[in-house]
Amino acid sequence: MNFREEVATAFRQIQSDICNGLEQADGHARFHSDEWKHVGGGGGISKVISHGHVFEKGGVNFSAVEGPLPAFMKDRLLQEATHFFATGVSIVIHPASPMVPIIHSNIRYFETNGGDAWFGGGIDLTPIYVDTDQASSFHRVLKKTCDAFHPEAYNSYKQHADDYFFIKHRNETRGIGGIFFDYLRQEDGRSIKDIFHFVQQVGQSFLPAYLPIVEMNKSKPFSEKQKQFQWIRRGRYVEFNLVYDRGTRFGLETGGRIESILMSLPEHASWIYNYTPEPGSDEEKTILQLKKGIDRI
Amino acid sequence: MNFREEVATAFRQIQSDICNGLEQADGHARFHSDEWKHVGGGGGISKVISHGHVFEKGGVNFSAVEGPLPAFMKDRLLQEATHFFATGVSIVIHPASPMVPIIHSNIRYFETNGGDAWFGGGIDLTPIYVDTDQASSFHRVLKKTCDAFHPEAYNSYKQHADDYFFIKHRNETRGIGGIFFDYLRQEDGRSIKDIFHFVQQVGQSFLPAYLPIVEMNKSKPFSEKQKQFQWIRRGRYVEFNLVYDRGTRFGLETGGRIESILMSLPEHASWIYNYTPEPGSDEEKTILQLKKGIDRI
Repeated sequence: MNFREEVATAFRQIQSDICNGLEQADGHARFHSDEWKHVGGGGGISKVISHGHVFEKGGVNFSAVEGPLPAFMKDRLLQEATHFFATGVSIVIHPASPMVPIIHSNIRYFETNGGDAWFGGGIDLTPIYVDTDQASSFHRVLKKTCDAFHPEAYNSYKQHADDYFFIKHRNETRGIGGIFFDYLRQEDGRSIKDIFHFVQQVGQSFLPAYLPIVEMNKSKPFSEKQKQFQWIRRGRYVEFNLVYDRGTRFGLETGGRIESILMSLPEHASWIYNYTPEPGSDEEKTILQLKKGIDRI
Repeated sequence: MNFREEVATAFRQIQSDICNGLEQADGHARFHSDEWKHVGGGGGISKVISHGHVFEKGGVNFSAVEGPLPAFMKDRLLQEATHFFATGVSIVIHPASPMVPIIHSNIRYFETNGGDAWFGGGIDLTPIYVDTDQASSFHRVLKKTCDAFHPEAYNSYKQHADDYFFIKHRNETRGIGGIFFDYLRQEDGRSIKDIFHFVQQVGQSFLPAYLPIVEMNKSKPFSEKQKQFQWIRRGRYVEFNLVYDRGTRFGLETGGRIESILMSLPEHASWIYNYTPEPGSDEEKTILQLKKGIDRI
């Protein structure tokens, strides 16, 4: 098995483990699988959950595709190349209850026939209502994973997540951030296998980072007002994904599988003209906390 | 009164007439006004209707602003210039009932201190369920307005609307089109006043093109399934506006007033993974009709 097959196999295992963990947490709905082929070669398995007791809509997608290198990728390369191979797992989960945060994660590996290779990935949390204790515990799990890789990794990847998951036109973060990294290549003192090991650890951190927060919140009662706020917060999630998210825009522009790309969008979202939360309300507290750099450990 | 003031005054009158006509059709809700200032000079009046008997959410926005010319506009100009003035009316109406189509329209005038000046605008309809008779009657009103301006205008502007209001990643039109035109400058046999007259006629065609369709449909009963289909069609409207619409993206990128730009988004929208209408259903018929070039007169 060559390296790319080793990576793809490990990623498929992570997809499977995460689906099992989420099904157990839901206790009712099961993931449904769709296999699809890519025109250039390879394909993917989209696993989708819907109308669960806990998860209203979510996807855990695996893909391993290859093809001619898109022109706009060429300035990212260290060596000349004509073809790429890419494999990854991409996750977005929209819970039914406004008390349970939305989560997003992906891990990905990219290599060219010119010998260039790198990993990227991350995990970030979008609570409808920000709970600072829960935010800290989420960040601590990610910090532990990062610290085992490099002492500077957490600060750097946390900053990257804050900068990336940012709804510029609202001057508002999408959620409380997490970690985000890209273009991790081998370099002095760090082999591609070291990076692969770290990225697997990130994939395996998904459940320990998310499930305790799901368990803490999934049985909490909620009001109609809290449900409406969830729909508004999801509207902003849609704005981020359609206006800014590189993966979404890349997929839409290059003719990716629409249903797998847009599985990140929630079943229901809402936009209210001039929505302004009541002064002193929990909704206002959350909006005020959606700023860069908060909730570091 | 110089020409730009004359245009702005006429546009404000059109805003006012359209709001009055829509309020009468609604019979319950009234437009609420917000005035705002632009950093470079001028400002606008956003008029918003919500939770009416007929109209769930809609905006009729007027603006007249000026400022330094944005760099990306410069390759559109015939003369060197440093400053612009722009005025326009922009309308998006989301009815409550899935039997009543969404409508969008705008008219706009742009001039520079280099002596360049042009008009743009259009009207297009997005029915939740396509009714070909109603589509034809909508197009006929627009054709009559265009024919009085130039014999080739309707065909050209109808084609432009089909090309523009197109959700490329779904290979699906946003609705049934209408007319769309831009960069109408004075030229041999056509003064800027002739164009201004045409653009006013377009503004005045809004109510005669839309209100008969509202009246025909507003009292029809509808089912839960039809309501869900409305939410899905609105989701695609959101996709178009956030991914492709030039006005929306320009506004978000240049720091426009967010609430006025995003008033085009519906109060509720929905995304269902792998949504496929039942074979032979009205929903399937509509999806099959959302192709370029249909419903010409």
